[in-house]
Amino acid sequence: MHKVAIVGAAGYAGVELTRLVLAHPELELTMVTSTADAGTRVADLYPALAGCDLRYVEPDAALVAAAADVAFLAVPHTAALAIAPALLDAGLIVIDASADFRLRDADVYAAWYATAHTVPELLGEAAYGLPELWRSTLDGARLVACPGCYPTATLLAAAPAIEAGVVISDRVIVDAKSGVSGAGRAPGAGTHYSSVNESVHAYKVAAHRHTPEIAQGLSDLGLAHPRVTFAPHLVPMTRGLLSTVYLEVEPGFGADEALEIYRRRYDGEPFITVHGAGRMPATGEVRGSNRAHIGVTVDEASGMLVASCAIDNLVKGTSGQAVQCANLVLGYRETLGLDTPVPVV
Amino acid sequence: MHKVAIVGAAGYAGVELTRLVLAHPELELTMVTSTADAGTRVADLYPALAGCDLRYVEPDAALVAAAADVAFLAVPHTAALAIAPALLDAGLIVIDASADFRLRDADVYAAWYATAHTVPELLGEAAYGLPELWRSTLDGARLVACPGCYPTATLLAAAPAIEAGVVISDRVIVDAKSGVSGAGRAPGAGTHYSSVNESVHAYKVAAHRHTPEIAQGLSDLGLAHPRVTFAPHLVPMTRGLLSTVYLEVEPGFGADEALEIYRRRYDGEPFITVHGAGRMPATGEVRGSNRAHIGVTVDEASGMLVASCAIDNLVKGTSGQAVQCANLVLGYRETLGLDTPVPVV
Amino acid sequence: MHKVAIVGAAGYAGVELTRLVLAHPELELTMVTSTADAGTRVADLYPALAGCDLRYVEPDAALVAAAADVAFLAVPHTAALAIAPALLDAGLIVIDASADFRLRDADVYAAWYATAHTVPELLGEAAYGLPELWRSTLDGARLVACPGCYPTATLLAAAPAIEAGVVISDRVIVDAKSGVSGAGRAPGAGTHYSSVNESVHAYKVAAHRHTPEIAQGLSDLGLAHPRVTFAPHLVPMTRGLLSTVYLEVEPGFGADEALEIYRRRYDGEPFITVHGAGRMPATGEVRGSNRAHIGVTVDEASGMLVASCAIDNLVKGTSGQAVQCANLVLGYRETLGLDTPVPVV
Amino acid sequence: MHKVAIVGAAGYAGVELTRLVLAHPELELTMVTSTADAGTRVADLYPALAGCDLRYVEPDAALVAAAADVAFLAVPHTAALAIAPALLDAGLIVIDASADFRLRDADVYAAWYATAHTVPELLGEAAYGLPELWRSTLDGARLVACPGCYPTATLLAAAPAIEAGVVISDRVIVDAKSGVSGAGRAPGAGTHYSSVNESVHAYKVAAHRHTPEIAQGLSDLGLAHPRVTFAPHLVPMTRGLLSTVYLEVEPGFGADEALEIYRRRYDGEPFITVHGAGRMPATGEVRGSNRAHIGVTVDEASGMLVASCAIDNLVKGTSGQAVQCANLVLGYRETLGLDTPVPVV
Repeated sequence: MHKVAIVGAAGYAGVELTRLVLAHPELELTMVTSTADAGTRVADLYPALAGCDLRYVEPDAALVAAAADVAFLAVPHTAALAIAPALLDAGLIVIDASADFRLRDADVYAAWYATAHTVPELLGEAAYGLPELWRSTLDGARLVACPGCYPTATLLAAAPAIEAGVVISDRVIVDAKSGVSGAGRAPGAGTHYSSVNESVHAYKVAAHRHTPEIAQGLSDLGLAHPRVTFAPHLVPMTRGLLSTVYLEVEPGFGADEALEIYRRRYDGEPFITVHGAGRMPATGEVRGSNRAHIGVTVDEASGMLVASCAIDNLVKGTSGQAVQCANLVLGYRETLGLDTPVPVV
Repeated sequence: MHKVAIVGAAGYAGVELTRLVLAHPELELTMVTSTADAGTRVADLYPALAGCDLRYVEPDAALVAAAADVAFLAVPHTAALAIAPALLDAGLIVIDASADFRLRDADVYAAWYATAHTVPELLGEAAYGLPELWRSTLDGARLVACPGCYPTATLLAAAPAIEAGVVISDRVIVDAKSGVSGAGRAPGAGTHYSSVNESVHAYKVAAHRHTPEIAQGLSDLGLAHPRVTFAPHLVPMTRGLLSTVYLEVEPGFGADEALEIYRRRYDGEPFITVHGAGRMPATGEVRGSNRAHIGVTVDEASGMLVASCAIDNLVKGTSGQAVQCANLVLGYRETLGLDTPVPVV
Repeated sequence: MHKVAIVGAAGYAGVELTRLVLAHPELELTMVTSTADAGTRVADLYPALAGCDLRYVEPDAALVAAAADVAFLAVPHTAALAIAPALLDAGLIVIDASADFRLRDADVYAAWYATAHTVPELLGEAAYGLPELWRSTLDGARLVACPGCYPTATLLAAAPAIEAGVVISDRVIVDAKSGVSGAGRAPGAGTHYSSVNESVHAYKVAAHRHTPEIAQGLSDLGLAHPRVTFAPHLVPMTRGLLSTVYLEVEPGFGADEALEIYRRRYDGEPFITVHGAGRMPATGEVRGSNRAHIGVTVDEASGMLVASCAIDNLVKGTSGQAVQCANLVLGYRETLGLDTPVPVV
Repeated sequence: MHKVAIVGAAGYAGVELTRLVLAHPELELTMVTSTADAGTRVADLYPALAGCDLRYVEPDAALVAAAADVAFLAVPHTAALAIAPALLDAGLIVIDASADFRLRDADVYAAWYATAHTVPELLGEAAYGLPELWRSTLDGARLVACPGCYPTATLLAAAPAIEAGVVISDRVIVDAKSGVSGAGRAPGAGTHYSSVNESVHAYKVAAHRHTPEIAQGLSDLGLAHPRVTFAPHLVPMTRGLLSTVYLEVEPGFGADEALEIYRRRYDGEPFITVHGAGRMPATGEVRGSNRAHIGVTVDEASGMLVASCAIDNLVKGTSGQAVQCANLVLGYRETLGLDTPVPVV
């Protein structure tokens, strides 16, 4: 049993963490912080969590350290820079869902986030928390950088082909589609119902901050000097993220072979399903769950492998994966608290 | 621990029951039947239930009786008439989510369902499974008739006012709004995405089969000779049901008094939240959960109490309530398997 | 041919007016004002209007008067109070889509809008612009108060029964459902995609500002001392408004008779369709058009007439009706510019 | 003025053609055919078209030829093969929205549509109706093959770069997203609201019948031996189609240069808007209109041009383009009947 604080608990990632920690048999939620909603009861802000009697408090490292063994951070980038060092110093395990410790190169961070990294010495230590690809790095970690939602789905879709050595080009096209909750809880013109509804569009093409994270991951998987073209799209739905990845393969490499590689790679993975031939995953299949569903085929005429990975952006894409990482770091069964069946529609 | 079979397990109510039984610590799912999908693995039909290795089998009373202590029926009306007696004779507890045993009067059944009731002798025995209103009837029941989705929300919204004796007219207006999953899994013109999306409409006004069930419930609550006008509406969303009920009250009866009556009535009910003054419930608050959220006010100028109850039509409106009833009949804690926090968006 | 200015042209009502005036063969759009978007080209703010080369300008009564013969006001309440008198003085015809001139009683305005009416002398003059019910009041009008979206659908649904004298109670229940665009273009928590999507809820029950306007209209139709209970609901769709109205009728009054009354009443009305027996209108049928579709039935067991009217809240509910009124005031064919067929899905 | 018959008028493409022909000042709709809905009034099937008094009749070439100068075919593939020759023989102009005359190579047709082409002699004659790219082929055409929805958006997105000679690879990745109306009016599991809603997925990757049509078009534009990888996706919205196209360009070729090429190429095109730097089109911008909105950028780090084109699949993607082609063939202004401003939300 571990005591848990969630820092930044009133945003969408934070409230999803709240739900998951409340449901976890070995985690006890002792503190939820929120600057904007300090003083409010969780159950009043979110009636769906009617059983939760905690109130949001202002974030304060000392109070968090006094209340918890483990801190989940669900704060905007730079806010984790500000609080993580103190929590680590106080002996807490920090599971960070922000972007602050994902990139190992402080210069790349500075270039893409337009601000200097203030604790670069922690970048080497932070474990990149994508267990299905780099599970062992979580052993004994005290700081986990949970991947972004787009990198999670993209790297899961690309990994088997790259690891198997069948990809013959460093060009990787990533065309991804996200639900609106990825933009967070704050209202704005970009999340206004009447603008978003009944419309789909690309945004931040070649400029999204998950691009260098995807490239770093592809490189770690073995693709030398990846040249990633990343085009995220906004889709009119609340949850769900689909990443469709295009990888050049040798002439003659076929769909059956690809499927066999993917199935073998993910055999036994509790959260991953590789669909059968001709079936591509839908985000609806994984709504509310920590699962990743993957389909793969090869367009043999054009020599292109196409892999598509569906996740729930707020679960496997953020908060569920954070709990999965916590389970591994804390020595619990990896699926603990994450394996309750979810609604199919 | 009890063994459970779900008869009619591949439709929306059935698959929701599947999910809930799989998640229940004291229920073991041993059989799922489906005529249309016999032979198919649950996990193949519904990838969200990737962990379930059962296959659908043809429904057969003897096989069900051999496999289970408890049978949940999620079949169309008349199909429960056909199988329930044999299951009861074999000693099973039957929790019926169909309409076949809800109405105590066989003539009313015949009039509204256009077919004779074949086992009217069971109508007196069947417990109407709406625990918050008639919990004691479930003690020792072997046949539970789970209420329809519309009656559940409507009766929960109306009960406190009627029981308190503040309703001065037998006229009850029920204007309800349901998501599309209420129409089931079978495709049709009425559930075609492009027809349903971006549109709302009333249907079966004064002709919906839940009308006599609502009237029976209101009468049981103490309203003599209720004259119910029931207008269901279809709303472009998958899940959720909102029933807004209009009840005439005495001049001078105010909103504060009404709220106090509602709060007192549902105090301690684990699945019910009565919102504070001026706040009406949204179906999104209860999506995926067995909760019912209620708001009440009084239009003091017109002397009308307005109560609105939000439920998830597939959970509290069908399958969750069935499990809640099973818990009571089987002697488990009423909330067992039903209290996992659910996503807030 | 008349020159037209739209004051408040960048909000949803304003841009809908822009579209309709641009499409109108006898109206020339000469000026669009917007405080927030002054300086921006219409086509840049709204790419759908790519053919419009106007730029928004700051609103100024003198400039509007110099540019136009007719001014449409699509501004928040009180803003029309501020500008309408000057425009009238300058000789313009003013078609006001705000709430400022709808209520004939300045005290009622003050009570519901929490501000004094500054030009009460205009209240008697303003024509209430619901042509199908009060067409003659538009003859020679120089100030038209266009009805609110909820009153439009509600009064169209209730009028035939009240006018025919078959309503036997002064109680009128109005349960209405609106799409999100009714809340306007400004983002906020209440219009955030992830909050609104997949959810329905009542709001401002017994407190919505359209309540006294509905009561005034019902009274004008002949219902003495109407006691209106009005419960608006928000539905997850962009456009569309459905008002379902419940009216008590004498025992023995039947559905066929009701339908006949409604058909006769609206016979020849170019924008109204009364559906056949058993068919209720869907808002999808009128999306983008100035039409109102109506269904009516009687629950003979409970003695209640139920009429449901579907409109597009931004067209017949606001801007289309404003153009319809302008056509009548200016002497054009009533349907001019409003009869282009619209998409069916 | 020309008389028009629509063959297959009750499906989504057909009813969209009905709407557009009714709105066209120089086309007179004289006949609508439908096998499934013969005998039904258009206005009864589609209340949105309340002003249309025609009834659907069984399709019959002789009757069509007697009634019309121009026939629009909105029928499934092979059905156009069956009726087009007789209509041409009778002297009609045939604007075919089916797939039957799009591919110039009968063997390719046979391979992808799994049936022999019965009138291959017409393939050379049929004009491929994408005016912005091949306007001159429509001069004097008597048979027009209107492009598929995916090829329309894809070719418009790719054309300027290919024609300008800046594409250095024959690999073309096309990741497209369509609304559900593209699947037609017939209900099915794949268009059931509760399945489609809140979910996105790829389908028919490397197997969609629009693939060879896209390849043919790219070849016509000057790309030798195009190797097209085409992955369509289904998005939860009724209308709209977005095609995002990835084209390899030379190192050093930049986003500004690309934008300049696109703007120049489409300068003066009445239905095309090329957005400014950094802005990508949304399908909501073109909902209901015949417009195509295009955004383009270059990921300079990876040497990839990304162009995204948004259309309404039922207008520019099908029926609107058919009318645009008819205007050109018949000698009317190209935009006639297609330039009415459409709603922005």
